[in-house]
Amino acid sequence: MNQTEKKIVFVTLKEGVLDPEGVTIEKALSQMGYSDIKSVRTGKFFEIEIDASASDIDKTINEVSSKLLSNPVIENFEVEGK
Amino acid sequence: MNQTEKKIVFVTLKEGVLDPEGVTIEKALSQMGYSDIKSVRTGKFFEIEIDASASDIDKTINEVSSKLLSNPVIENFEVEGK
Repeated sequence: MNQTEKKIVFVTLKEGVLDPEGVTIEKALSQMGYSDIKSVRTGKFFEIEIDASASDIDKTINEVSSKLLSNPVIENFEVEGK
Repeated sequence: MNQTEKKIVFVTLKEGVLDPEGVTIEKALSQMGYSDIKSVRTGKFFEIEIDASASDIDKTINEVSSKLLSNPVIENFEVEGK
């Protein structure tokens, strides 16, 4: 069996793009009395196991991130290798 | 104006909990020819700005994470301070 390598892709909304889920959480927290919390922004991430013997792992992960995992119009992504 | 501190809460599904979004992405990638990718698990995160002068910041973040940001039955959370 081939070994795999773990990569994590973090996807966030670009600055200026409205984050309705974050805003909803902010309001809920304020109603629950957590007035010290000033802002909440949401994001998602993907833990990817990729064949460690594959060629061009970084290129593949970048391709997949921009084609399938994020929407380049409104989102940025960042890859973390482990 | 008070300064804020940034905390990031990462929420992942517990081991053994089915991740339909991850499975869908895995299948799509395999159909797109990315056969080196063996597994995809999804997660979400929350970037929280909290008043730096608040007392018990860590306690507040833990409370909020378990009460509102995650479902303790099926999800784990981890806090990263910055």
